[in-house]
Amino acid sequence: MRSATTAARAAAAVSAERLQALFHSISEVGAYGRAADGRHGCERLAFSEEAHIAHQLFAEAARETGLTVRRDRIGNTFARLGPADRETAPVLTGSHLDTVAAGGCFDGAAGVVCSLEAVRAVSLAFRESGAALPRPLEVVAWANEEGARFPPAMMGSAVYAGSLPIEAALSATDSEGISVRDALAARAPGEGTQPLLPPASYLELHIEQGVELEAAGVPVAVVDGVQAQLAGDWRMIGREAHAGATPMERRRDALLGAAALITEVSGIAHAHPPGVATVGKSVAFPGSRNTVPGLVEATIDLRHPEERAVRTMAADFIRAGEACAAQCGLSFEFTERWRSPRVTFSPHLVDLCSRAADAAGIPALRLFSAAGHDAVNLAPITPAAMLFVPSTGGVSHHPEEFTEMNALVQGARVLSATLALLLG
Amino acid sequence: MRSATTAARAAAAVSAERLQALFHSISEVGAYGRAADGRHGCERLAFSEEAHIAHQLFAEAARETGLTVRRDRIGNTFARLGPADRETAPVLTGSHLDTVAAGGCFDGAAGVVCSLEAVRAVSLAFRESGAALPRPLEVVAWANEEGARFPPAMMGSAVYAGSLPIEAALSATDSEGISVRDALAARAPGEGTQPLLPPASYLELHIEQGVELEAAGVPVAVVDGVQAQLAGDWRMIGREAHAGATPMERRRDALLGAAALITEVSGIAHAHPPGVATVGKSVAFPGSRNTVPGLVEATIDLRHPEERAVRTMAADFIRAGEACAAQCGLSFEFTERWRSPRVTFSPHLVDLCSRAADAAGIPALRLFSAAGHDAVNLAPITPAAMLFVPSTGGVSHHPEEFTEMNALVQGARVLSATLALLLG
Repeated sequence: MRSATTAARAAAAVSAERLQALFHSISEVGAYGRAADGRHGCERLAFSEEAHIAHQLFAEAARETGLTVRRDRIGNTFARLGPADRETAPVLTGSHLDTVAAGGCFDGAAGVVCSLEAVRAVSLAFRESGAALPRPLEVVAWANEEGARFPPAMMGSAVYAGSLPIEAALSATDSEGISVRDALAARAPGEGTQPLLPPASYLELHIEQGVELEAAGVPVAVVDGVQAQLAGDWRMIGREAHAGATPMERRRDALLGAAALITEVSGIAHAHPPGVATVGKSVAFPGSRNTVPGLVEATIDLRHPEERAVRTMAADFIRAGEACAAQCGLSFEFTERWRSPRVTFSPHLVDLCSRAADAAGIPALRLFSAAGHDAVNLAPITPAAMLFVPSTGGVSHHPEEFTEMNALVQGARVLSATLALLLG
Repeated sequence: MRSATTAARAAAAVSAERLQALFHSISEVGAYGRAADGRHGCERLAFSEEAHIAHQLFAEAARETGLTVRRDRIGNTFARLGPADRETAPVLTGSHLDTVAAGGCFDGAAGVVCSLEAVRAVSLAFRESGAALPRPLEVVAWANEEGARFPPAMMGSAVYAGSLPIEAALSATDSEGISVRDALAARAPGEGTQPLLPPASYLELHIEQGVELEAAGVPVAVVDGVQAQLAGDWRMIGREAHAGATPMERRRDALLGAAALITEVSGIAHAHPPGVATVGKSVAFPGSRNTVPGLVEATIDLRHPEERAVRTMAADFIRAGEACAAQCGLSFEFTERWRSPRVTFSPHLVDLCSRAADAAGIPALRLFSAAGHDAVNLAPITPAAMLFVPSTGGVSHHPEEFTEMNALVQGARVLSATLALLLG
């Protein structure tokens, strides 16, 4: 069997209708903010009822496609085509089904749905050519990629890859002290956390969440790597005081120090192009209009393609936090939540993705990812690579997050062709 | 009967034990954050169960002292000594029993407790001298002075004074859309909103919430007036975006614009001494660490002894809001919530307070109030004045808000002596 031919067949076997049907059914779970044109956002926080239902819909669709489904202790769902033996490592492909609060329908779900359809298409192409699959194919829906309620992000894949102990993950708590263990207890628990065998390769399709593909008018990108990231929590601590009776010079206004730091954060990012720095959460306490805030609780997220630059940005941030605090008579506290290193994907697998796009006749860019993905956790244990499909306007983590169905189909075709080349 | 003598007798008749007993019993309602020395904060948001219980404790204590209690439709509680007739206007004295969220025990309750004890002492002094009270004395516990959950602040006294229609007050809503009408419905409703006759005078004792008395080492101040105030809500509106994949130059980060404005607010206050400007509430949405904030909701509170300065500060604030928004590609929205004018208290009554302090042998400063009080609403309909007692460290709206019991007793003595002079 000639690989390029099978790859082209696998690409052609992708069914736009099946892909669209499953994507729409999952998109309805946690739907909110429906616009006049029918588009809407999705909110499926990790370990919520909505996330659980989405995993179940995926599992049902996988079983109908002839795959065998299992769930592990952290809530990752795996669907396997081929025997669960200890001799032949599977090719793994997938993404996640959880979203941020007030998120979109495409971030994560696009990759899970395209992976299942790509696996079905590859199996069909092999059957048509009379060949047996040389190794199992496994589709995964990772649990808690976003870390929106339970940090750290990319939790499910970290547990699977062995970089986060299962007990640490289960003991992670949300801002109200509820643990992942408690949140999971309400659902049917799975078994095992480690794969039978480490996967032979890992492929993940995801929306770009940037504007490069849209600007180039190209439906797919092959991703070379992911930028380094550091996430943390910080607090400015001052003293509550009466808003009417406390002269300006006697105040220790936590919000004033926080505002100065937030301004500095933007400057730190601009000083390290193409780095980005974000304060995503910021709340002043006690939050009464009559009271000078005594406390601000906030987050920081720093990213740059170079790890060294992220370390410099983090040091600049902490220095700025202490300086802003000192200026306003406050104290500054910083807690690092996680670091993810710069990841360079497998050059062999990246090259295979490009060749698969050629075989499928679909133009593809090469990009470096600005956002972290589960593939970052898989890269240390197996050759990994990613495909991107366009995000309209670069909008993500927002109800207007959108990718054309045709781009999803093209992405699934390249993924299917890549799987065929890997197996051929 | 010589007035000064009765005034001195009325001052001496104040019982520290009775005052302390009632104050402590009310302080237990909504107590939180008890420190090792037994001091604690109080949280009795207006129209809450806690506020209701505090009003009931006050009513019980008033009845035991021989006063007649009634409650009006907005939840003000009145306790009268003397007949409820339509011929002789009462002298009214009191303060409020609600607190801000996470507040202290003294702001409001100090005045209600001192007023009841002062009225008891005056009545005793008159009885001892064999004279009848020439007019009724009425103690009031105003509802919703803080406006912390249901703006506007000073609601109960505004309805009583006729400056806020009862229907508007009952329709006021909290941030979740619950109305005052709904919150009040759970309690026994009162009757009437207007006094039988406008009061002949109004006196209010309150904690200073500043540091002048402490710095001077004086237990009581006579208050000449209250500074002007403007309160509003504001929003910065940008666009949510992915924190990893959105380059800095493509962001419309609502928090960045809000931070710039918060810094400007402090500058506006410093440009208008002795004005103060406070952003008490500030929350970024959606509040996810992975998402560039698309919205910030916040408040603004501007105060200055001169009304014209408050107007200038408000204009400066709106201009700064629009400029900060424009700079970050955002839109800025401002909604004025209330204005309270500069109030100059009755010179005659202020003078009487000073003479009463002399008669009681208690040193008293003269101060201008930095904080708004219910007396601001009473001043347009009757001669009004206030007394202040010290706030340790100027701390208020905070669990560490504290006034020495001895200072409360001294305050109650001056109040009692003032009532005696008014009646004499």
